[in-house]
Amino acid sequence: MARTSRDIRSANRLTVVQQVVAAGTTSRQRLAVDTGLSLGTVATLVAELTDLGLLTEAGQEDSGGGRPRGLVTADPHGGLLVGVDVAETYVHVDLFDTTLTRLAGAEEALRPLERRPHQVVRHIVSGIDTVLAGTGARVLGVGVSVPGQVDREGGVSVFAPNWNWHDVPLRDLLADHLPLPLHLDNPLRAAVLAELWAGAARGRDDVAVINLGTGVGAGLAFGGILYRGSSNSAGEWGHTTLVLDGRLCRCGSRGCVEAYVGAPGIMQTLRDLAPTSPLLHPEDQTATLDALAAGLAADDPTAAKVVAETARYLGVAVADLVNLLNPEVVVLSSWVADRLGDRLRDEVRAVVAQHALRRPLVATGIVRSPVAGNPVSLGAATLALEGFLTQGR
Amino acid sequence: MARTSRDIRSANRLTVVQQVVAAGTTSRQRLAVDTGLSLGTVATLVAELTDLGLLTEAGQEDSGGGRPRGLVTADPHGGLLVGVDVAETYVHVDLFDTTLTRLAGAEEALRPLERRPHQVVRHIVSGIDTVLAGTGARVLGVGVSVPGQVDREGGVSVFAPNWNWHDVPLRDLLADHLPLPLHLDNPLRAAVLAELWAGAARGRDDVAVINLGTGVGAGLAFGGILYRGSSNSAGEWGHTTLVLDGRLCRCGSRGCVEAYVGAPGIMQTLRDLAPTSPLLHPEDQTATLDALAAGLAADDPTAAKVVAETARYLGVAVADLVNLLNPEVVVLSSWVADRLGDRLRDEVRAVVAQHALRRPLVATGIVRSPVAGNPVSLGAATLALEGFLTQGR
Repeated sequence: MARTSRDIRSANRLTVVQQVVAAGTTSRQRLAVDTGLSLGTVATLVAELTDLGLLTEAGQEDSGGGRPRGLVTADPHGGLLVGVDVAETYVHVDLFDTTLTRLAGAEEALRPLERRPHQVVRHIVSGIDTVLAGTGARVLGVGVSVPGQVDREGGVSVFAPNWNWHDVPLRDLLADHLPLPLHLDNPLRAAVLAELWAGAARGRDDVAVINLGTGVGAGLAFGGILYRGSSNSAGEWGHTTLVLDGRLCRCGSRGCVEAYVGAPGIMQTLRDLAPTSPLLHPEDQTATLDALAAGLAADDPTAAKVVAETARYLGVAVADLVNLLNPEVVVLSSWVADRLGDRLRDEVRAVVAQHALRRPLVATGIVRSPVAGNPVSLGAATLALEGFLTQGR
Repeated sequence: MARTSRDIRSANRLTVVQQVVAAGTTSRQRLAVDTGLSLGTVATLVAELTDLGLLTEAGQEDSGGGRPRGLVTADPHGGLLVGVDVAETYVHVDLFDTTLTRLAGAEEALRPLERRPHQVVRHIVSGIDTVLAGTGARVLGVGVSVPGQVDREGGVSVFAPNWNWHDVPLRDLLADHLPLPLHLDNPLRAAVLAELWAGAARGRDDVAVINLGTGVGAGLAFGGILYRGSSNSAGEWGHTTLVLDGRLCRCGSRGCVEAYVGAPGIMQTLRDLAPTSPLLHPEDQTATLDALAAGLAADDPTAAKVVAETARYLGVAVADLVNLLNPEVVVLSSWVADRLGDRLRDEVRAVVAQHALRRPLVATGIVRSPVAGNPVSLGAATLALEGFLTQGR
């Protein structure tokens, strides 16, 4: 029910760091206003976070007649954070400092047959070795995002549908190679953290971040805090029903949102509308989506039809989120949303306006993710920062 | 983002009262364990709540060798709470003491043409006068639940679809007759509060309470706290799409959950399956649902088919909630759920088991509301208690 004093202290630490990272430079006074915490609490937290090396003094500002106010900023020398995005076809690793500035990156391709845990682990370790090569600073932690359902306390990939993994003890497998604090979660959580820390959800309370890729899901935050659900499996919006008895989904059910708006679902829509279209690259999702994006730009009528039909499915499903959750902002993220860009966003907005109830509709913005680079590896790095802060290391 | 100190104090007061009401009698030490608050904070809150007349000392218990521990309980003489459930066909008013024990009740029928605000207001005032007649104690507040979308800060019924009300200033209209603190919200909020305070959601964090009546919705709580969304219109699950391009819903969209599992939707299913069935009372939802319930009890094959079809629709829609929100418990509430009882619950469980993902499925219980009497008027009364506690009166 109520949170323990320790939970509250950890949450307040995180909130302060998040505010400072978002603001760049700020004062204790402004932090108190922005967070709702008392000035005394803020001062104590800033002192703790300075001792931990995460914050540092940044001069003073005039306070309009009173004593000048001390400024604080995130300390780029506070340590290193590693964020890993393990996807179906690649392992992407980014290195960040504690201001969440990206310092280095590496990407390793996963070949179609490289789907066994030890093969994926090898690529994760190799990617991390690459970004850490030659760095001397301490590493505060590593956050790893893997698709599917994750037991984050146990560090176990409970179910990864793309590889048919069941109960793979990924953290233990990685710990044999990496003597670093490891934090495991899935791309839905990572993407919503990226938006909360550095994207369209900064300062927002109730948020849905839609991951539109091969798989589809909605990362959720309520009251500005990541929502996990009772067993860290919230957000499986891709496996909610859009069309009763509709297309077969890879989860085994029929008519799921993912079967219509995930990359394979969009390819199916293209196949249904124009089976012989040159836009279709039957074995290659990325090439097909690239062709659709190029077709849109060239006013190709087939591309326009496929995107309109996709927007109709996606818009109805987003309207469901708006009606159920009444969020402040819905963020369209991941590679399919990036490929289809403003056109998809605008058509989705129009469909949502037809299907959502007026009161939640006017309270909701539908935007594209403004996060540059890979939001999932960025979000995974904030998991490592969160782990460092809450474990008091 | 973070909550203000005042918010936290109000939330902690509420949590303590909620725990004491649920426990009956408890100690400060046990409250500290149950709430996660420090013993000092609990002692301060208990002292404040005792000063407000809500809690009272209740003797001592042995602590197994140490000093005996003082016990506290909710004070039934702390004041009176009025809860009002305004529905399409009736106004139901209940009077409670601060232990949430029901002291009196009144119900006034709304005739089909009594749909104008001043007519409904007259029945609310008359019902409240009835339950308060002869009582001398102070009234801490009145909570009023009205269907549809509510601006609770303004006390305005923004949209009540059943009466086609738009922006009716209900609190101001009532204030002319009732010089009492008035708190307005809708049945989704009231029903989830009833479960949190006195039902299947006591001590639970992540909860969906499904209201199955003429209208359909899902009251939500996350982290043990009522979730309202960014403009107090969360929970419109009845207007999420179950069948793309399906049945026309009264909201204007097609294929909404409500169009299949609300009472009129169930009547439509009966009409589709057996247009001349004697179970069908074309102008009377209550009589039709009563006939279906009686038919189930008598092994009537048409009744069984209608309930199986309803369970299929409802089960898929509940599986959507399970996949998206990963709740600990889904509570089936309101009069349609009561009529169709354990049979509907059991068939819904079976459908959910086919459609939900395994990890959220095993974390979720699907139960009927155990709240005796009218959960909406009880929940509305807790809104009044919440208002009293957070406004510090």
